[in-house]
Amino acid sequence: MPKPPNLNTHLSNLRGSPYSKFAEHIKNMGTPTYPLHIGDTYLTPVKGACMEDLTEKQYPGMHRYTKTVGYPDLVREISECYCIDLDQILVTPGATGGLFLLAQTFVGMGEEVLILAPYWPLAAGIVQNVGGKPVSVPFYDRDLSVSDLLSPYLTDKTVAIYVNTPNNPTGLMLNEKQVTDLTTFARKNNLWIWADEVYEKLVFDDCHIEMKTYAPERTFSLYSFSKVFGMAGNRCGFILGPNAQTVRYLQKSAVNSFYSVSTASQIAALRALKMGESWLGYAREAYKQIAYETADILDLPRPQGSTFHFWDIKPYLQGRDMDDVFLRCIAAKLLIAPGSSFGAQYSTYVRFCYTCAPPGNRERGSDPLEGNLTRFLMSDGVRFGFLS
Amino acid sequence: MPKPPNLNTHLSNLRGSPYSKFAEHIKNMGTPTYPLHIGDTYLTPVKGACMEDLTEKQYPGMHRYTKTVGYPDLVREISECYCIDLDQILVTPGATGGLFLLAQTFVGMGEEVLILAPYWPLAAGIVQNVGGKPVSVPFYDRDLSVSDLLSPYLTDKTVAIYVNTPNNPTGLMLNEKQVTDLTTFARKNNLWIWADEVYEKLVFDDCHIEMKTYAPERTFSLYSFSKVFGMAGNRCGFILGPNAQTVRYLQKSAVNSFYSVSTASQIAALRALKMGESWLGYAREAYKQIAYETADILDLPRPQGSTFHFWDIKPYLQGRDMDDVFLRCIAAKLLIAPGSSFGAQYSTYVRFCYTCAPPGNRERGSDPLEGNLTRFLMSDGVRFGFLS
Repeated sequence: MPKPPNLNTHLSNLRGSPYSKFAEHIKNMGTPTYPLHIGDTYLTPVKGACMEDLTEKQYPGMHRYTKTVGYPDLVREISECYCIDLDQILVTPGATGGLFLLAQTFVGMGEEVLILAPYWPLAAGIVQNVGGKPVSVPFYDRDLSVSDLLSPYLTDKTVAIYVNTPNNPTGLMLNEKQVTDLTTFARKNNLWIWADEVYEKLVFDDCHIEMKTYAPERTFSLYSFSKVFGMAGNRCGFILGPNAQTVRYLQKSAVNSFYSVSTASQIAALRALKMGESWLGYAREAYKQIAYETADILDLPRPQGSTFHFWDIKPYLQGRDMDDVFLRCIAAKLLIAPGSSFGAQYSTYVRFCYTCAPPGNRERGSDPLEGNLTRFLMSDGVRFGFLS
Repeated sequence: MPKPPNLNTHLSNLRGSPYSKFAEHIKNMGTPTYPLHIGDTYLTPVKGACMEDLTEKQYPGMHRYTKTVGYPDLVREISECYCIDLDQILVTPGATGGLFLLAQTFVGMGEEVLILAPYWPLAAGIVQNVGGKPVSVPFYDRDLSVSDLLSPYLTDKTVAIYVNTPNNPTGLMLNEKQVTDLTTFARKNNLWIWADEVYEKLVFDDCHIEMKTYAPERTFSLYSFSKVFGMAGNRCGFILGPNAQTVRYLQKSAVNSFYSVSTASQIAALRALKMGESWLGYAREAYKQIAYETADILDLPRPQGSTFHFWDIKPYLQGRDMDDVFLRCIAAKLLIAPGSSFGAQYSTYVRFCYTCAPPGNRERGSDPLEGNLTRFLMSDGVRFGFLS
């Protein structure tokens, strides 16, 4: 079927970005004043872990291939930090690349993955990309038990559960009971657990719970240096797998897709792990401050972690539709992410990342758009001005 | 089927490296004295395009996400260098990542890709990784017409032809008649052409012919900064597609697999393109000298391009088997690639990369292994010593 000029049909509905619907408008918009649609940071990485700090003199051959499982010193450092055997580690191009390898390796055509919603948009896209079926399970905004929430979506084609804690977009975290119930459910129904824990170190007051502690035999943990150490552009993360054999399968799929992660990005990650603790402490505190402040202004629950607010603007719509909202945002050079990208149920939500723009800017300008997003959204005279 | 602890069956036979068979031995070997099994270089990238040359001051936000189609200035530079529209370009993690996106996008389960052999091992692995069937077509070592060579392998499941020119492993290049015949064959049978031209600028005397000039409507050209500019570890290459729509599909698959290429790697690539011309001239001349010299010593045809010799050692085997050869190489801390990885027909061949070790070393030592591989192989008293 996919002979020229036809294309593979299972990709036809795949999105190239959560904002595909408005791609033309965004293209014509020019540089956004507030690119709050993407999970990134205004901070630069810790000094010592920037590219300019990595020299051929100190790392001879650093522009050459490294081991496909990962730069050996980085793999050793991860092994020590996470108390896990070397052969259970695979370095991946961000958690995105890691999740993709899981899907590529464990999901057959038409097989299903339960994705706890609202969810990181690429979780669904990645499953779709390999010919699987992402099944959105409303979870973070519900009060029922894990079993009650998940059981209706279970079929004989279900192979895995994808869960992201701390959660993008809600900022919520699983508590111990939820983790226990989820691992019990996975074990009972013999499902893999794909635990996306990329915000593990961006937790503000509570304690992050590692899923793999509760179901080590079936859990793949996804981590990333992107969010924790402010180096999303480096494309470096890693997977911890339940045993050497499964990780070996992922490595095969890695070699036969992107081959390996940039050697320099891995050295940067190694240095961030070794010298980034105080930087991370500072970043977490700064993120928390803006997280709480913006939550309070918008009357949202304070997030437990991550870098996002997920905000139901239904009460403010007054009959306007969401497309209109996003088009007005784009006209104001303000990008926020449509809730529908995080699960079909969330069409009246918006997600925005509160760590994208430096908070120091927000008092400065006379133009309301030069202020911080939430100030802009909520401040006198322009309350929802962008929606009007 | 792939529920815990089972794994996806179509990956079971996938190799994690061309040397999988000897993985345990290699693991125990320690650092090889001659890692000539992989296509890499002893040179460091051009000054100005090393990671240490890329500063946050000059490239603010260089550790953050960039556009998923590619770093805008790099995409513009490629557009100018290759005379192609911006929306026909996608930056990929090396040509490996590019070929993977083609397979992921255009090959359905069980569909076939004709791979002109001997071939780069990952070409087959990548097709297999997406559930397709790689069909090895002996080509570079045959004298028949394109149509005679390819027709016997054509089925109603064939969707594409993969061709690599200059060729890894043979160092041969397609001439104009071959290119014309190949594009005619592809057009007649309505196949995509995947033209892997990563060695395009490592051509010693002849002229490289771009496949896409002859069949622009169906050709995807794969390029890489890895080989040409000595930065394989950076994982940066690009695809040029026949039109915006097909490239858009590849971008969707990219976003939903590895997301994008390292921002810093793309800036390094941009700088290599802008300032690498004389470095490249030097590298090409140095590679050519060692290519010709080693070919003459081994009585092999002088390669037209690439960085490899493909050598049939059958006449020297005298009843020994190839496993024995490779195990003796490993014992001598010498890694060369088994011919069988380049097509089942080539089991008595070995491939070695002549640009991996600095030629300056070869006169120095008293230990024959401290000399250049071919000197070692051929020099007085140790002729095939490593095989004996």
